[in-house]
Amino acid sequence: MSITARQIHLVSRPDGMPNHDHFATVEVELPAPGDGQVLIKNHYMSVDPYMRGRMRAQGVYAEPYALNQPMHGGAVGEVLKSNAEGFEVGDIVLNGAAWQDNFLADASTVNKFTPFDMDRLSLYLGTLGMPGMTAYVGLLRFGEPKPGETVFVSAASGAVGANVCQIAKNLGCNVVGSVGSNDKAQWLLDECSVDEVINYKTCGDLTEALTKAAPNGVDVYFENVGGEHLQAALNVMNHFGRIAACGMIATYNNAEPASGPNNLMLIVGKKVRINGFIVFDHNDMRTQFLSDMESWVSEGKIKTKETIVEGLDNAVDAFLALFTGDNFGKMIVKL
Amino acid sequence: MSITARQIHLVSRPDGMPNHDHFATVEVELPAPGDGQVLIKNHYMSVDPYMRGRMRAQGVYAEPYALNQPMHGGAVGEVLKSNAEGFEVGDIVLNGAAWQDNFLADASTVNKFTPFDMDRLSLYLGTLGMPGMTAYVGLLRFGEPKPGETVFVSAASGAVGANVCQIAKNLGCNVVGSVGSNDKAQWLLDECSVDEVINYKTCGDLTEALTKAAPNGVDVYFENVGGEHLQAALNVMNHFGRIAACGMIATYNNAEPASGPNNLMLIVGKKVRINGFIVFDHNDMRTQFLSDMESWVSEGKIKTKETIVEGLDNAVDAFLALFTGDNFGKMIVKL
Repeated sequence: MSITARQIHLVSRPDGMPNHDHFATVEVELPAPGDGQVLIKNHYMSVDPYMRGRMRAQGVYAEPYALNQPMHGGAVGEVLKSNAEGFEVGDIVLNGAAWQDNFLADASTVNKFTPFDMDRLSLYLGTLGMPGMTAYVGLLRFGEPKPGETVFVSAASGAVGANVCQIAKNLGCNVVGSVGSNDKAQWLLDECSVDEVINYKTCGDLTEALTKAAPNGVDVYFENVGGEHLQAALNVMNHFGRIAACGMIATYNNAEPASGPNNLMLIVGKKVRINGFIVFDHNDMRTQFLSDMESWVSEGKIKTKETIVEGLDNAVDAFLALFTGDNFGKMIVKL
Repeated sequence: MSITARQIHLVSRPDGMPNHDHFATVEVELPAPGDGQVLIKNHYMSVDPYMRGRMRAQGVYAEPYALNQPMHGGAVGEVLKSNAEGFEVGDIVLNGAAWQDNFLADASTVNKFTPFDMDRLSLYLGTLGMPGMTAYVGLLRFGEPKPGETVFVSAASGAVGANVCQIAKNLGCNVVGSVGSNDKAQWLLDECSVDEVINYKTCGDLTEALTKAAPNGVDVYFENVGGEHLQAALNVMNHFGRIAACGMIATYNNAEPASGPNNLMLIVGKKVRINGFIVFDHNDMRTQFLSDMESWVSEGKIKTKETIVEGLDNAVDAFLALFTGDNFGKMIVKL
């Protein structure tokens, strides 16, 4: 008995904001698992802003998505059939085969794990997964915040940003976040104990707003946005400030590259350090990350906001919503 | 018997390119040295691009120059009269009192030293002074070049840049420089053994020229210029590349801030590290710097190009020439 898999392929490369024409849903028949293989049914898949970068033929990431193939990305699934030692039917696995419901994999390419809570599997795509680890690695390894310092986080209610804010609070920092809606601001203030939140769409001059929100200056900037946010952060940064550069979502859908901040000379005068980073280079921190974060989550010291969209057919819309600011928290597709 | 001192004051703050109207020559009478003081006659003073930053009321540096006071900066002089223990007439001292011929100082504010060669005193304002140490600190501490890696240096024939190029060659690196004239390019190739030199004024697209000059990519960029140079460096940078940000001379005289590079997202994708720095924070490296550099200079492994302008009355012109590209090597004023 063969099993059908539904996959979403990238069929052309967007120039500017992607739309449905760039994607196609494809059905394929999967054979029975070969030696060392497992058949997996994905329960949840992740959509993340970095995926936009991988849709370019060349550029920011080493491996662009291939055309007319399923895109890849984080997913959590369950073993349906196993022909591999050490894998049983029902095992829960993290895998990189998002954008498809069922798939066949070499067992060595998936990670079996014991969920902290079977009812919260989707956390392993967010707070306890790649976005959470991105927050943890970027803040600790590159931000190096000390208790009492001020940490500024852009896209602060996002899948990465909300974790950065809360980890920084747990480390004893003063935290200022920037978001694009009052609902997001309120959630950060009420649920995440963030000290000050700026709505960048309504605050007027961002440098002035940040100066007011961070009267002692910014020691660490966790960069998710780029453009004016980077410019304002540099303006308000203290000497020897650190910038952990995780992403620049404001620039991802520009067909023509936009100019950068006009005050980069402040990097010199303020002796600022900027580190670009990608989480996949920092697997040495995974054990420490899971240990700290599972504790914080179970103690209620890290809250998670998820938007869960139902069904593979809505995955493209879920992805596109990442760029309109309509989503709130970690965007997850339930398959 | 009192002694007259001639000083150059900043009398108004330039907005854009400075000119003679922003400066005035002032004569003052100096009293005899008080207890713990020395009277010093400066032989050489330095003009450096960073001085432009200090002419702003606020901004890149912590201490702007005061109006209607002598500006400060590096100088080498000789003790004329001493009322301080440990200082004898004829002692050679490094001091921060440029822009004046004679001055009275607390002995604790000047540094007595034994010149490596009495006929080459001016070297202590260049290769063996602040610009040389800037090159050394920036390249070693922040560039961290490994033998065989490619180091790209902008303003490569300048007081800092020429030392960066030659230190990098002495460390076994492949070195690419960027300059604004063929004479400067030829000097770097012939005298300093630099591997490839780009004349950015005639090369056409800078990214293409750098790609050709650095076919294995750039591992370390020593940033003196900013703007298009930074953009090109990011385009050609290898993953995990390092940028030592020493200055951005292209931006210093802009009355309105100019936009930055359009490709800063490459900082993330290529996992680039950028460190702004100012040499004064790194005095812990001074002994190592002088030991290495005096050896390299005496062995002919570091060449120095100086432009020596005669007389305090020409100091403003010497300073202004830093921004026109007319100077070649370290600009020194002989007093």
